[in-house]
Amino acid sequence: MRGPFLLAIAARRSPSGSPHFFWTGTRMIIVTAVGTPADDVENIVAHVERAGLRAHISRGEERTIIGCIGDHDKLIAANLTRLPGVEQVLKIGKPYKIASRAFAGSDTIVSLGDAAGTRVGGSELVVIAGPCSVEGRDMLFQTAHAVQASGARALRGGAFKPRSSPYAFQGMGREALELLAEVRAETGLPVVTEVLDPRQVELVSEFADVLQVGARNMQNFALLTEIGKSHRPVLLKRGLSATITELLMAAEYVLAQGNTQVMLCERGIRTYETSTRNTLDIAAIPVLKRETHLPVLVDPSHAAGQAALVAPLAMAAIAAGADGLLVEVHPDPTCAQSDGEQSLTFAAFDSMMRQARVVAQAMGRELTVPLLV
Amino acid sequence: MRGPFLLAIAARRSPSGSPHFFWTGTRMIIVTAVGTPADDVENIVAHVERAGLRAHISRGEERTIIGCIGDHDKLIAANLTRLPGVEQVLKIGKPYKIASRAFAGSDTIVSLGDAAGTRVGGSELVVIAGPCSVEGRDMLFQTAHAVQASGARALRGGAFKPRSSPYAFQGMGREALELLAEVRAETGLPVVTEVLDPRQVELVSEFADVLQVGARNMQNFALLTEIGKSHRPVLLKRGLSATITELLMAAEYVLAQGNTQVMLCERGIRTYETSTRNTLDIAAIPVLKRETHLPVLVDPSHAAGQAALVAPLAMAAIAAGADGLLVEVHPDPTCAQSDGEQSLTFAAFDSMMRQARVVAQAMGRELTVPLLV
Amino acid sequence: MRGPFLLAIAARRSPSGSPHFFWTGTRMIIVTAVGTPADDVENIVAHVERAGLRAHISRGEERTIIGCIGDHDKLIAANLTRLPGVEQVLKIGKPYKIASRAFAGSDTIVSLGDAAGTRVGGSELVVIAGPCSVEGRDMLFQTAHAVQASGARALRGGAFKPRSSPYAFQGMGREALELLAEVRAETGLPVVTEVLDPRQVELVSEFADVLQVGARNMQNFALLTEIGKSHRPVLLKRGLSATITELLMAAEYVLAQGNTQVMLCERGIRTYETSTRNTLDIAAIPVLKRETHLPVLVDPSHAAGQAALVAPLAMAAIAAGADGLLVEVHPDPTCAQSDGEQSLTFAAFDSMMRQARVVAQAMGRELTVPLLV
Amino acid sequence: MRGPFLLAIAARRSPSGSPHFFWTGTRMIIVTAVGTPADDVENIVAHVERAGLRAHISRGEERTIIGCIGDHDKLIAANLTRLPGVEQVLKIGKPYKIASRAFAGSDTIVSLGDAAGTRVGGSELVVIAGPCSVEGRDMLFQTAHAVQASGARALRGGAFKPRSSPYAFQGMGREALELLAEVRAETGLPVVTEVLDPRQVELVSEFADVLQVGARNMQNFALLTEIGKSHRPVLLKRGLSATITELLMAAEYVLAQGNTQVMLCERGIRTYETSTRNTLDIAAIPVLKRETHLPVLVDPSHAAGQAALVAPLAMAAIAAGADGLLVEVHPDPTCAQSDGEQSLTFAAFDSMMRQARVVAQAMGRELTVPLLV
Repeated sequence: MRGPFLLAIAARRSPSGSPHFFWTGTRMIIVTAVGTPADDVENIVAHVERAGLRAHISRGEERTIIGCIGDHDKLIAANLTRLPGVEQVLKIGKPYKIASRAFAGSDTIVSLGDAAGTRVGGSELVVIAGPCSVEGRDMLFQTAHAVQASGARALRGGAFKPRSSPYAFQGMGREALELLAEVRAETGLPVVTEVLDPRQVELVSEFADVLQVGARNMQNFALLTEIGKSHRPVLLKRGLSATITELLMAAEYVLAQGNTQVMLCERGIRTYETSTRNTLDIAAIPVLKRETHLPVLVDPSHAAGQAALVAPLAMAAIAAGADGLLVEVHPDPTCAQSDGEQSLTFAAFDSMMRQARVVAQAMGRELTVPLLV
Repeated sequence: MRGPFLLAIAARRSPSGSPHFFWTGTRMIIVTAVGTPADDVENIVAHVERAGLRAHISRGEERTIIGCIGDHDKLIAANLTRLPGVEQVLKIGKPYKIASRAFAGSDTIVSLGDAAGTRVGGSELVVIAGPCSVEGRDMLFQTAHAVQASGARALRGGAFKPRSSPYAFQGMGREALELLAEVRAETGLPVVTEVLDPRQVELVSEFADVLQVGARNMQNFALLTEIGKSHRPVLLKRGLSATITELLMAAEYVLAQGNTQVMLCERGIRTYETSTRNTLDIAAIPVLKRETHLPVLVDPSHAAGQAALVAPLAMAAIAAGADGLLVEVHPDPTCAQSDGEQSLTFAAFDSMMRQARVVAQAMGRELTVPLLV
Repeated sequence: MRGPFLLAIAARRSPSGSPHFFWTGTRMIIVTAVGTPADDVENIVAHVERAGLRAHISRGEERTIIGCIGDHDKLIAANLTRLPGVEQVLKIGKPYKIASRAFAGSDTIVSLGDAAGTRVGGSELVVIAGPCSVEGRDMLFQTAHAVQASGARALRGGAFKPRSSPYAFQGMGREALELLAEVRAETGLPVVTEVLDPRQVELVSEFADVLQVGARNMQNFALLTEIGKSHRPVLLKRGLSATITELLMAAEYVLAQGNTQVMLCERGIRTYETSTRNTLDIAAIPVLKRETHLPVLVDPSHAAGQAALVAPLAMAAIAAGADGLLVEVHPDPTCAQSDGEQSLTFAAFDSMMRQARVVAQAMGRELTVPLLV
Repeated sequence: MRGPFLLAIAARRSPSGSPHFFWTGTRMIIVTAVGTPADDVENIVAHVERAGLRAHISRGEERTIIGCIGDHDKLIAANLTRLPGVEQVLKIGKPYKIASRAFAGSDTIVSLGDAAGTRVGGSELVVIAGPCSVEGRDMLFQTAHAVQASGARALRGGAFKPRSSPYAFQGMGREALELLAEVRAETGLPVVTEVLDPRQVELVSEFADVLQVGARNMQNFALLTEIGKSHRPVLLKRGLSATITELLMAAEYVLAQGNTQVMLCERGIRTYETSTRNTLDIAAIPVLKRETHLPVLVDPSHAAGQAALVAPLAMAAIAAGADGLLVEVHPDPTCAQSDGEQSLTFAAFDSMMRQARVVAQAMGRELTVPLLV
């Protein structure tokens, strides 16, 4: 799919050959203050025309409104506010381009590359589960087998951990990557793991099937650019207080490098409410599905911050139209090195999956949960 | 039900006969700063004992921690922070009492008082629908018939409207109340309408079956107290930036007056995200179900702010365990006096209800949608 | 002052004699989606014209933009979004009218009505101080004398307290009002106290010099309307999560009733940060000074929530251009019935005032602090 | 200074020689649910003791509270919540160690390394000013001379720009670094510039005097660790929605590597209010001054987002106790490649500095503004 897609990008480049993509549909509207003298209006128009755009003037009873027609990359909206007489500058259109629903003809479907042919973004609801961190061989293999038995289609597990304290457990690093590859060989489950550093992209890409970008790195543009050059699918988590537009612009960084296999992940945003770790922005799911062709996953574990709330949030995510879930599971959460509070036990995960299957079905999505023996 | 319930309240009053309820389970813990001299610790203990409590002292390697045992209403936590040597005061336990799940033996079920016997909080998922404002007889009757035909069990409609602008439409007032009573007589649908002013509680109670307290009035304590004295069930909406604890404390104001028929309503909170009118705090549903015995409804219309997002949010609410929905419906949203952006057309509401029925079923809840003829 | 002011309002009424004020400078702009067919554009134009406005059409390369010229009160922006082809509706101009800086020729100065002629909004920086709640005669008189000696020009003190718990101290009510009047008689300090209930406006107006509207009641429109009919100056606090525009619209409710003596008060907003009780929005001061002619006060006590932070926030407020401060002071904060954590002792208040005098002077404002004896 | 400082760190290592620092003053308190059976309490105590800590039990009327005494690094608070009977786990003490005020005997003063001997954190108020991005030689030299003439003590200027859009100007890179070094040679102004990528730390360190970490990278731990190994002072900006504790933990990442020359910078946080680009958390200044020994700067430009609001916010910052300011200045903001909306002209910056001098003086700080010729 990547071939024709890049062709499509090329076709939309601006004729001027600039490195900026030419995007259709943008309009800039300049609103003058009440009582702006004619000289100031002329000055604004001259500024617009110097940038090579045409100015379309609409004089109202007390305000003049100036529409700018042409290549908007040549005019910086913020600067216009500094011209005398300008009260407001309105920019119409979306800043994301390749990520935009209008760009692609249809929904992007991301293949996880496993023998089972797992595809995210289609009719199947895909559940990715596993421990927050890889803490050792036994716990990883146990967890992989358990989540697979309950219907998970991919394994998550952190090798490099972004911790707010430099004194906290930072992950097992390369050793964890090797264990993940080993467990994939045994179970066939594709492996999702986080990359923290542009210098690790190559290493992690060797072992992982999906590169995860964590919430704290959503606007780590050096990392996004490096990942955009890799051949691995990407799971991009929404930043702690990122807007939906910023999430799509972060995706745009990856897409603009030619890597089109991007999955977005809502994981809760930071608000004043403290009864949960984050506030799951459930509406982000339908908003994203409207704005972009990329698949949308939900991480109920980080949103909830407590194991008991994970299942209700997971059900809500499925009902709101998510394409998949990312869930933390641990053999014994009382001993977890990280996220013990929110990790599900095997039994709790299995029970969640059985309920998820019914809700997915109600929403017209498939979720296969192996039968109890 | 009210009789034995008030008895239960009485039984829990503190033996001292104080107007404060005696609540079990509260503990206050005073943490001293590292290196606090013994004199300061003694002074803190003396302060605690003067209030009639016992102080339980635990000396650690560098900090002393003082547990306070006894009637905590006599000691104000905030004040303790002003004593020399106090670094932090921790209050254990929840400030809500009657609203607390521990208080009631079982879930509160609120009867709407109609002939059909609609009950909120039981196995049925109850949908309340109707226009934002009552704008006239025809539109009200049309809407009532339409929502009833699609399965709504109660009618919402504003008579007095809280508008952020004094120049906006403020509702038809008493005339709207009379129309609501008329349409109830015709359809049998119980009527839910908002009260804004303690002076209107009596008037609105004459006509309405359920008194709604809007988000902006969630901490209008004069209004809550007045409503607590009425005999009508109450639909209490969460404030724009109220915590879940504050919502329960607002319910407590109503409950403490003896009115136990309180339904809570999550309707979105204010965050930095602007792609929706508010951010629906979907996790509030399971958190409230854990904390309180009161029924929990969701208003997807005000959370979304756009008609196209109402159905996905409604499905999410059902999947997360809501006991019911509050939905805005209008015969012609392009002409609505208020909330035109988010009101569903009759067709869109009907379609939402048919999907809701399937999701409710998946969650083990009943939602009866009349068959298509 | 009220006479000519109301005349000015009258002069700006719309010629149609509608109860809505005719406001100059509003413009509505409708943006169509890329590729909207001509029929849809015509339909939008027809909708605009049916409301009696003129439509000014600007066709860009891919979008059409429709400016609406005429009386915008006849067209509801939100409804337009429901018409096929409409992508966005932009409303230019501010919704507040009488509160707007453009409305008044100069800054509003509010006289507190005392013999000393205290005026808020002029060159003097006015400090209002006193206990959170009136707790008794002695503490009130002591505090009044102390804050006056340190340079306060008015006394604050709660008679009716809005408490998040129905079980907390609710204020001494009428008795407190009488004590406040008594202490005013003795000291000459004008008295500021909160009104919670429209039914109390008359009673409180009898005793108080300034009616305070608390943060929780900023959008209690019944209360605002009642206060708008009184003859007392108003101190209107910003709601917990109110935008600056909403604060000005709340002021507009009071102003629209003819009461023009409104002072605004920034007191911190609710954010995710928990190291302070609220986050003081210091930028609200210059934004309000630009948008409105009304005086702007700051309450550093509620923003801080801790006594040690009150002085730095007070200095910041003065430096950012505030017209005055509202500060909580208590003879013994360890025994306060409310807000003990954040109340200043007499000594701390005096020290704050001495520093405030120097900063005020640096900002070209007067603050008279009596000399130490 | 670094020598004895690292010695101090070593001295505080835990006797067990663990890679974790032993921190004094931490206490963990486990609160059991009302009615927890004795078996569950015993099980909790056993869990605590297995981790090598002692459990101190306090039995209240209905709850048991267990204090944990010993090395808390061996017990993960979150995990304890998963044990039956545990209702809450309270962790006393601060997670930051080297950044903590208690760690250092006195305020850290950061030398910028210039011939003039500029020191941040002492009695002088230090202003760092310059363009958002280095856009060319002329504009950079003009700006450097202008800000120096108005009293700035260091030059800011972006070489690598973190832009939310991949299509926006990304900075001049190495060429900008060379220009910055050139202008330093001419003016003597030390140079502050941002690093975005751990791979650039070495390059940027060659040219810059201070390494800036931007808000979006505050939790880019790979970058922080790399910067911690460099010998350059660091200017660490608070993340968009970072708590004060998280900012200090980010500083801890740098400090833990041995680089003790860290300056913190408050630049506004993300809230629901949209009248400014961010909400300047003015209280962060006194809170940080209480919690840490590191200098605290304020960036009023990014907080305001509009040139007209920069000066009031700068004055507020000085009055609240900031050690310095970071201000964007541009020869012609209408043509800026980035941040044109908020950049000050030379004249506006000069005027701000003259006012700043007076306010600084009122606060007992020095700010030397060269005399007008």
